[in-house]
Amino acid sequence: MSVINNFDHLLDSVRQLEKPCRVAVVCADDEATREACEKAASEGWITPLYTTEKVLADAAAQAVAWVREGKADAILKGLINTDILLRACLNKETGILPKGNVLTHFACAEIKRLRRLLFFTDAAVIPYPTLVQRTAQLEYAVRLCHAFGIKEPRVSLVHCTEHANPKIFPFTEDYQVLKEMARDGKFGPCIVDGPLDLKTSLNLAALREKHIDSPLQGRSDVILFPDIEAGNVFYKTLTLLAPQTRMACMLEGTLAPVALTSRADSAETKYLSLALIAQALSARC
Amino acid sequence: MSVINNFDHLLDSVRQLEKPCRVAVVCADDEATREACEKAASEGWITPLYTTEKVLADAAAQAVAWVREGKADAILKGLINTDILLRACLNKETGILPKGNVLTHFACAEIKRLRRLLFFTDAAVIPYPTLVQRTAQLEYAVRLCHAFGIKEPRVSLVHCTEHANPKIFPFTEDYQVLKEMARDGKFGPCIVDGPLDLKTSLNLAALREKHIDSPLQGRSDVILFPDIEAGNVFYKTLTLLAPQTRMACMLEGTLAPVALTSRADSAETKYLSLALIAQALSARC
Repeated sequence: MSVINNFDHLLDSVRQLEKPCRVAVVCADDEATREACEKAASEGWITPLYTTEKVLADAAAQAVAWVREGKADAILKGLINTDILLRACLNKETGILPKGNVLTHFACAEIKRLRRLLFFTDAAVIPYPTLVQRTAQLEYAVRLCHAFGIKEPRVSLVHCTEHANPKIFPFTEDYQVLKEMARDGKFGPCIVDGPLDLKTSLNLAALREKHIDSPLQGRSDVILFPDIEAGNVFYKTLTLLAPQTRMACMLEGTLAPVALTSRADSAETKYLSLALIAQALSARC
Repeated sequence: MSVINNFDHLLDSVRQLEKPCRVAVVCADDEATREACEKAASEGWITPLYTTEKVLADAAAQAVAWVREGKADAILKGLINTDILLRACLNKETGILPKGNVLTHFACAEIKRLRRLLFFTDAAVIPYPTLVQRTAQLEYAVRLCHAFGIKEPRVSLVHCTEHANPKIFPFTEDYQVLKEMARDGKFGPCIVDGPLDLKTSLNLAALREKHIDSPLQGRSDVILFPDIEAGNVFYKTLTLLAPQTRMACMLEGTLAPVALTSRADSAETKYLSLALIAQALSARC
């Protein structure tokens, strides 16, 4: 397959899927969610299954049950609070997070100034990732990139500077471990480097000005953020201040991918998030 | 005075200063630093004092000594590593950080989509601010805004969500304390609110979509970031991905303001940082 470099490529790809993705839509009570589902369904690449329960928690449980019963391949969050949906997903007996799996949030951004899609984690779920959680984020990221045809994804471990200082920033020690694991082939084909700041992760000129040598060459496909505050600021800054940015979001770690957009998100973001999970799924089979 | 809403206003203002600001320029060995100084000097609002010592640490000590001796009002960092300059500023016997003062970094951004200058802290110096450090940041921020004619600055205490959760995010408890101090008049005229995310801090529509009531009304003048990672990501994202953004930077807490730009910064950023410290000084007298 060729590399999916932007959302138009992504839509071309999902429109050619052999069979539609069966999506459990939790509380499609807002226009944006319905519009996104109807558009994707009319193009033939999803089959929406709308929850019928009236109580929010019951609707979330219904969607999760459909996944466990093999009736749905993925979930889309509609007009429901994230924590209610998460509680259903995380339920130890009836949920869809396999024991030991790490649940994490991924965003995929199409940014005008970059010529590729940028995946980043975690802007919404894990406050201060542990090494185990960062390892899972890296695993998921590489798998996701492979699903997008990126054969050797470039992953940047971001920090405010290029110097590791484990005394003040303990996670910079984890970064060294992650790089070693990547070199040992633990994640499959990928290039992992860090600590790098956001600019040296994404811009070759910035890298050269600082006289830093990085195998990523300022062309990262994935950003692993040090904490949720940094990830969230990046997400919000992009949507607010970087013009013509388009975004899609999902949860990873669950049995079925969950398209998780904010209640205030547009129909387009929900539609693109559906495409993101459909493409992610195509690589899991 | 009228409010300084953008860098053109700022330049108009400093060009009308009664006497030029005497700036100790540490290691003006790069073209960008010299160009910035010569332009400001030719316009009559700074008098540059170039360090003559050849060893970097000696040049930094020389600039700091000029401030202590009353020969310089401010410092501009040229082609010298930040840590060397900081060491000279922080020296307990010969430095310029009064005992008990907090040293912190401020950036001032002119962003195309906003109609005002945005001040933010801390993208570069304090890793995880304590309550004492946040209190100082807030004090400095209000003073800085007053120097820009903003009579009642709006300060947002940023977090990834609007809910305070001191168990996972202890600083959200500090945010409550800061709000109380502001209400008690500790900082002078200002409006302080938080936790708010970056988007609800800067965008009224986002605030309304989330049904949040905030006295800032999505019109913050100042952003206090929860940690250096978030501040740094904001800084780097603006310079990299938000078109037509202009930036100026300085250190606060020292006897004299220090214009602290990165070695790779353009002459324009250095020139604007000179204007920032000149304006900041005008309010200290």
